Amino acid sequence: MSMSSPKICVVGFGALGTIYSFILEKAGAQVTAVCRSNYASMQEHGIDIQSQKLGVYLAWRPHRVVDSVDNAANVEDNYDYIVCTFKCLPDIVTTPELLGPLLARSRNFVLIQNGIGIELDLQTAVPEAVVMSGCAWIDATVVDHGRTLRHGPIEKLVVGAHPPLGAPPGAPQSTEAHTALTAFVDLLKTGGGTPEQAVNIEAARWKKIIWNAGFSTFATLGNATLPDICHEPARSYTMPIVRGFMEEVVSVARGLGLDESVLPAASIDEAIDLTLSEYGVAGPAYRASMLVDFLAERPMEIEVIIGGILRYAAAKQVPTPRLGTAYALLKVHQARFIEKSKSRS
Amino acid sequence: MSMSSPKICVVGFGALGTIYSFILEKAGAQVTAVCRSNYASMQEHGIDIQSQKLGVYLAWRPHRVVDSVDNAANVEDNYDYIVCTFKCLPDIVTTPELLGPLLARSRNFVLIQNGIGIELDLQTAVPEAVVMSGCAWIDATVVDHGRTLRHGPIEKLVVGAHPPLGAPPGAPQSTEAHTALTAFVDLLKTGGGTPEQAVNIEAARWKKIIWNAGFSTFATLGNATLPDICHEPARSYTMPIVRGFMEEVVSVARGLGLDESVLPAASIDEAIDLTLSEYGVAGPAYRASMLVDFLAERPMEIEVIIGGILRYAAAKQVPTPRLGTAYALLKVHQARFIEKSKSRS
Repeated sequence: MSMSSPKICVVGFGALGTIYSFILEKAGAQVTAVCRSNYASMQEHGIDIQSQKLGVYLAWRPHRVVDSVDNAANVEDNYDYIVCTFKCLPDIVTTPELLGPLLARSRNFVLIQNGIGIELDLQTAVPEAVVMSGCAWIDATVVDHGRTLRHGPIEKLVVGAHPPLGAPPGAPQSTEAHTALTAFVDLLKTGGGTPEQAVNIEAARWKKIIWNAGFSTFATLGNATLPDICHEPARSYTMPIVRGFMEEVVSVARGLGLDESVLPAASIDEAIDLTLSEYGVAGPAYRASMLVDFLAERPMEIEVIIGGILRYAAAKQVPTPRLGTAYALLKVHQARFIEKSKSRS
Repeated sequence: MSMSSPKICVVGFGALGTIYSFILEKAGAQVTAVCRSNYASMQEHGIDIQSQKLGVYLAWRPHRVVDSVDNAANVEDNYDYIVCTFKCLPDIVTTPELLGPLLARSRNFVLIQNGIGIELDLQTAVPEAVVMSGCAWIDATVVDHGRTLRHGPIEKLVVGAHPPLGAPPGAPQSTEAHTALTAFVDLLKTGGGTPEQAVNIEAARWKKIIWNAGFSTFATLGNATLPDICHEPARSYTMPIVRGFMEEVVSVARGLGLDESVLPAASIDEAIDLTLSEYGVAGPAYRASMLVDFLAERPMEIEVIIGGILRYAAAKQVPTPRLGTAYALLKVHQARFIEKSKSRS
């Protein structure tokens, strides 16, 4: 790995992909961006970055822009990292299927994506590789038909390496994983990002999924903005259910051995209190990203968010009546959206 | 009560109101129909009845058509029966509020409406009156802007008298209740209807609510026709939840003392098997009536269907995580629909 100018392939070039490509290039990396739907626009205009945290850069482009994973695999023999920032829809295409020939182009994969258990199919496909993942906390959106990225002051990436498939609990991290993770974290820091190295990335993921499984799920099935469900009188009948979803998440995590020391039960109150304080009285009519997909009748990340939880729940025989109900309802909508997305393409 | 020509007021003149008014008039009753939204159309055209069971009658009108409960109360001092066939939306207006001055115009009320616990507010308002109710099984729709009623071969009304508020379980029916119920059932028979006198009307209502709480709720929140959720592969993930809803309904009924002898657990299998046999392979793209309201963004009967079950569940401390989830989600939609219906009027 040449750390003076590491070669990184970023797959999926929405808000997350753009921000992390930008940070990595500022740190000296050469980013090859796989732009699928937005290749023409990136080639022609680049993208205007308007970020409170990172500054303003007009018509920015990464080192190289390609339109497919095949081309990304053709232009380099080896990438130091392959960073996945695409929407995770394994009910349509799995990560190994989507990465295709890129699977053979690196020893290091970083998944900056939502969900639980999202690394498993990749680890199975490339058992020798280091699979890292990160939970991004970021307030960015691409607007203006893909020509402008708007980003506020928030950017934090909690990132860690997944233990290899079948590793015993508490097994020490391999030197290779440690080196790859530390180098990636250092790059982000150098580029102006705010990475936080997680001792237990699983626990970090479960902590983040608490919010998604509670608020995103409920808001989507209720076709509601956050103020819609956080204001009184709605709050009195919505919050017990949102909390019920979250309690089921924590009980599944407990079944996996994530105890109070790594995933405190108080995470539920924190998630609810923070959201109520932002949206309970005033606050913008914020729509959770799952609801945005729902309203656009696009496939939603339900398999990696709720499905991932429920697969562990089934394996560990933890009851999840509320999440199970939400999942089945979302799957009925999803079936319709997948039909539509097929007939579009 | 002059049984040669009983005077009956029917409030709410949709498909149900029309069919039962027609049957009652054929039996010799004089029906005063309270037509709220469809008064002008009923005055001008009447309604064409096209019924496989009852025959074809063009431009049919009942004995008298009025446009409000106030006018129905003004034109008669006493009705032998007041029959309620309006949609039951106590979160907008309760039955006693809606009936207004009619409350003082009869000793006998018949509620041909969906739901659980729908008689309680009326019984509280008129404790001396006999409150009967019926579960209708009927395949009728009003089409052509209210000018035509289409009805297939199905019409069955399971009807019974509610015990007075606070009556001990198993208390004998009053002579007044028995007389009123029997006379009403006889009228329906004479008019060509198919009434069935229920020994335990509560049990009959719970038996019917099993279907609504399972299928209507799920189909509405999934925006799905019955084939959508009854076909494979959807069936494999929808039916466990539909069944879960139904099992919660039965467990609440058990908490109220409705045991296997009056509400067999096999009612769940019957409801599911019958529906799968009709919609599991072929079958028309049938939308449950709650979904029809949902798609039109009109208030839904969620308080009397799910809310009624959950109020008893809370009183008897029976857990209902699935129905509780569905109810909270439906209430979020309902809040939006009530806002809309206010801004329309």
